[in-house]
Amino acid sequence: MSTWKLTPQNPVPSDIEVSRSLKDFILPISTIAENLGLAPSQYHPWGPHKAKVSLSTISPPPTSNYIVVTGLNPTPLGEGKSTTTIGLAQSLQASLGKKCVACIRQPSQGPTFGVKGGAAGGGYSQVVPMEEFNLHLTGDIHAVTASNNLVSAALESRMFHESSQTDTALYSRLIKNGKFSNVQISRLKKLGIDKIDPETLSESEISKFVRLDIDPSTITWNRVLDTCDRHLRGVTVGEGRKETVKGKGGGERVQHSRSTGFDITVASEIMSVLAVSSSLLDLRSRLSRMVVAFSHTNVPITTEDLGVSGALTVLMKDAIMPTLMQTAERTPVLVHSGPFANISLGNSSVIADKIALSLVGSDGYCVTEAGFGADIGMEKFFNIKCRTSGLKPNLAVVVATVRALKMHGGGPAVSAGKALAEEYRSKNVELVEKGMSNLIRHIKNARKFGVKVVVAVNKFETDDEEEIEVIKRMSLEAGAEDAVMSDHWAKGGDGAKDLAEAVVKACSTSKPENFKFLYDVELPVKEKIEIICKEIYGAEGVDYEEKAEEQIAEYEKNGFGNLPICMAKTQYSFSTDPSLKGAPSNHRVTVREVRSCVGAGFLYPIAGDIMTIPGLPTRPGFYDVDVDVETGEVVGLF
Amino acid sequence: MSTWKLTPQNPVPSDIEVSRSLKDFILPISTIAENLGLAPSQYHPWGPHKAKVSLSTISPPPTSNYIVVTGLNPTPLGEGKSTTTIGLAQSLQASLGKKCVACIRQPSQGPTFGVKGGAAGGGYSQVVPMEEFNLHLTGDIHAVTASNNLVSAALESRMFHESSQTDTALYSRLIKNGKFSNVQISRLKKLGIDKIDPETLSESEISKFVRLDIDPSTITWNRVLDTCDRHLRGVTVGEGRKETVKGKGGGERVQHSRSTGFDITVASEIMSVLAVSSSLLDLRSRLSRMVVAFSHTNVPITTEDLGVSGALTVLMKDAIMPTLMQTAERTPVLVHSGPFANISLGNSSVIADKIALSLVGSDGYCVTEAGFGADIGMEKFFNIKCRTSGLKPNLAVVVATVRALKMHGGGPAVSAGKALAEEYRSKNVELVEKGMSNLIRHIKNARKFGVKVVVAVNKFETDDEEEIEVIKRMSLEAGAEDAVMSDHWAKGGDGAKDLAEAVVKACSTSKPENFKFLYDVELPVKEKIEIICKEIYGAEGVDYEEKAEEQIAEYEKNGFGNLPICMAKTQYSFSTDPSLKGAPSNHRVTVREVRSCVGAGFLYPIAGDIMTIPGLPTRPGFYDVDVDVETGEVVGLF
Repeated sequence: MSTWKLTPQNPVPSDIEVSRSLKDFILPISTIAENLGLAPSQYHPWGPHKAKVSLSTISPPPTSNYIVVTGLNPTPLGEGKSTTTIGLAQSLQASLGKKCVACIRQPSQGPTFGVKGGAAGGGYSQVVPMEEFNLHLTGDIHAVTASNNLVSAALESRMFHESSQTDTALYSRLIKNGKFSNVQISRLKKLGIDKIDPETLSESEISKFVRLDIDPSTITWNRVLDTCDRHLRGVTVGEGRKETVKGKGGGERVQHSRSTGFDITVASEIMSVLAVSSSLLDLRSRLSRMVVAFSHTNVPITTEDLGVSGALTVLMKDAIMPTLMQTAERTPVLVHSGPFANISLGNSSVIADKIALSLVGSDGYCVTEAGFGADIGMEKFFNIKCRTSGLKPNLAVVVATVRALKMHGGGPAVSAGKALAEEYRSKNVELVEKGMSNLIRHIKNARKFGVKVVVAVNKFETDDEEEIEVIKRMSLEAGAEDAVMSDHWAKGGDGAKDLAEAVVKACSTSKPENFKFLYDVELPVKEKIEIICKEIYGAEGVDYEEKAEEQIAEYEKNGFGNLPICMAKTQYSFSTDPSLKGAPSNHRVTVREVRSCVGAGFLYPIAGDIMTIPGLPTRPGFYDVDVDVETGEVVGLF
Repeated sequence: MSTWKLTPQNPVPSDIEVSRSLKDFILPISTIAENLGLAPSQYHPWGPHKAKVSLSTISPPPTSNYIVVTGLNPTPLGEGKSTTTIGLAQSLQASLGKKCVACIRQPSQGPTFGVKGGAAGGGYSQVVPMEEFNLHLTGDIHAVTASNNLVSAALESRMFHESSQTDTALYSRLIKNGKFSNVQISRLKKLGIDKIDPETLSESEISKFVRLDIDPSTITWNRVLDTCDRHLRGVTVGEGRKETVKGKGGGERVQHSRSTGFDITVASEIMSVLAVSSSLLDLRSRLSRMVVAFSHTNVPITTEDLGVSGALTVLMKDAIMPTLMQTAERTPVLVHSGPFANISLGNSSVIADKIALSLVGSDGYCVTEAGFGADIGMEKFFNIKCRTSGLKPNLAVVVATVRALKMHGGGPAVSAGKALAEEYRSKNVELVEKGMSNLIRHIKNARKFGVKVVVAVNKFETDDEEEIEVIKRMSLEAGAEDAVMSDHWAKGGDGAKDLAEAVVKACSTSKPENFKFLYDVELPVKEKIEIICKEIYGAEGVDYEEKAEEQIAEYEKNGFGNLPICMAKTQYSFSTDPSLKGAPSNHRVTVREVRSCVGAGFLYPIAGDIMTIPGLPTRPGFYDVDVDVETGEVVGLF
């Protein structure tokens, strides 16, 4: 395998400048694929720098090393979790000569143009070309948008047609060429009607078949866009001039209009389905199980009832293949799925991890990232993603920064766009020591799953030796295998060599067979929620609003009670209050509502105030973004 | 160039079955590209069957043959215009050995899952694999959706922030690192403020700079989705729980909520911009000129004022490259842009045509398609697309069917999903003869532009020899060069050999220098509209509703009066009444409103009742669509 030595500049240029400076050095994606051992039939180039990788590359998982990278509760500036994931992968391959693949999520374009910036990593530890990574990629998020909104159109127009047509009219229109389609036969089975000839249904069977009888107040399916458009959070639809229609049997005109909302695409259940699916068959099956509403008689209405599940699978058939890219040091990266961690699963896909583990072989390393704070990203990685995949992790790398620890120790508020306070720019061992409570709880949480921990301190110029020593000492005392300073942002893989060595050492003695879940899915829903809140968040207890109580009862009655739990909670605190730093322990969690993601396979309690679509600031990031029309190069992205 | 002989089956299988039957015979897209003379640096494979073609392939246009395929006013079933475009291209290359590229539009996914079916052509004259063509393609429509909706988010959130912040607060947030960004300097220039240091602006200059002061009642920019979701035609946005905000200076809380609507993505101005752009620079410039609203003092507000034009260009930078695919007989096809013809430009892109003309060389043929009836698609092709591109067409091929002629002659209504009446299934020369009035007017219309015409009769099994003779005789009398029966649907290029020969013959004597526009853009707006309505539609005159009058006055005042006209009108009739068949001549056209597409470069009068987002029928097409999870093949698409 060809290697190439980075020559990092100092000071480190902007992310896009670093990415652009490497454009003559990165390899054609076909070379990256060949180096990984992919046959030409196993991947499809998608432009010069990206390729879709076929699921045929998945082999029974060998005993390769499976490492999850997570972090403490971050400041709003982010603590470099993606950067560390990429830097660690670069070091494992380029510095230590290990076979390694990094697995990360596709970023939402919304925040890319808003406040957040990209998610490709940064400095000399990033996925390149970063603009290809941050925009469109290979269209997976667009496919989720299209699929999600086809469900909405199907749902809304079915209600519309049912409101204006008699049973006979509906039936005559639903039957084509005297036959049921496969998706209609599925619905008949669900109704217990064992017939395949449309001529033989009785009047009451016809009525059951043609009427989904959706109760609009139970609809949980929102439309989505991958844009930070806050004014779509709450909308009324169906107000068009021509949206009135004669009622059934020629009754008076009715307008089917309804209050609803949009979420950001990465919050769509279909994005979570993509993250947890293991095969095309599994994807098809999950896309048909999604519950979008209940009928007036409390029957769950699924995408299969809407007749749309086959079409969804067709729309998602390319998206199921992860996208292969490379890092600044030519390490292969699989980019796949992109659910937000605060409002969704927050992990990259099972398929990407399985492909990576298959390709790196038994001595290799798959470094995968779990979003936001370990209290949500890592907990969901263990309890949901690993449960679904059957994979057992060897190690958790928990990323920390001196800055975030100081904030948890009582430092002034940190916010995007404002200068950092003095405490963050000079030595303050006391704040770091106090703030370690946050990191320590994450270390102990990982140990509850039987997983070893290495702490990675993402280096900043202002970090002090004594501050680092405190982090090391207290991390080891809390049960971490090691705690290592890492300078991959400025130096690439070379800067993460200590970290990579610590990871290799910890993996060599790790016992994946010790891995265990925190709860049994067969427990009652509330008990599972309480285990997470108490064991992981350190909460005193959980309170439920009435709506949540009703929903839980409904789900348990309908057989969804045995699904794992995917909490929607702020990433900024162990509690539901973003301002509560450190390791709070006398707080209570209030669950406002519980949504079901039956296709993705989890229940989704909403704790506290979580936005499902961000807004744009007064000066959005897109003010700086442009194309150099002479060279075609993107400028100003970050 | 390798050739391959089709062996068509009889009866012709479904479109997707034909497409699938060819999967071992179609060439890798890189072979198609090489055969066309593309260097490896001039195209990027996008999966195995598609490639993006670089604009660097455009050379000064040689004297190749430039042929537009259009049609008479269709029945709701469609008369096979795309199929004829593809069949003619197949025949030119495979039967006559000419170098040929077909240029067609990317279809909207909305109708694909609704009623219409695909747009790849059909039978043995189609673009393959048809499911790749009909779904996602290389993501261009998704890029338009993302771009269009970023404008909406920018617009809406700018109004929101202006409503709640003082001039000082806005200014301090808009300025980053003490500097204006390039897009802000553009805005300063527009305001006549010749300064680049934010410190030097006076208070009144600051106020002018920070306040776009948008009048919500003037907003013409809608959000878009590529989904048939009729309930989005009319919506109220901004109703979220948290969408209230304190007024400027701490005044009482206001909620920024607003009635608006969604269009289908292919109706977005950005789709039209893509269709008419000639280069990255031109695209950038058009994307910055788009007018989204007016201020309270009647100043046009552009995407450049919103600061979003650079980001739009970045989002569209891959979409500007046409997608190369192939026909059932390996003819190269460029697929690019997809504006609807009834509500938009209805033509594929200038860039694709220029690339095709460059690649086929001086003896070659570029066959490009103009949407729907020639009264809209062809008229816009000549008056807008050719005016923008500077290209002169050699020939118009007008597609007709016996079925559509009978309908125009007074036959019973034709509608999708219902069996055809007896008149359409057996010989009826009289109806055909009467219906020829429609075709004859289209022939005469083309001649008004100085362009020669060949009529292509798309063959159906039920066609009678005598019916065909009538069409031939009357077409020649009306000024067509030839009128030829063509059986490409059942037989591929072989079936279109007579048509291809007629086209080659007509081109050999055509004089592109005779090509002329129907109107001078410098004429007053109303005069231009009247010329189209009288000369092309045969209308007696035009009436304007008050809103349209006001808008025309506003546009002329703001210097947009000299743009060409892009009529939004039904495709089913020369008039605005879809039921008025044949060649009506005593009808009047009512213009309800006139929108401006300043970036795309036209004014857009809405004549009659035109839907800008279709709905889904009771039994949508997606009921039959699925993936075979064993083989990964798409089934039931059409």
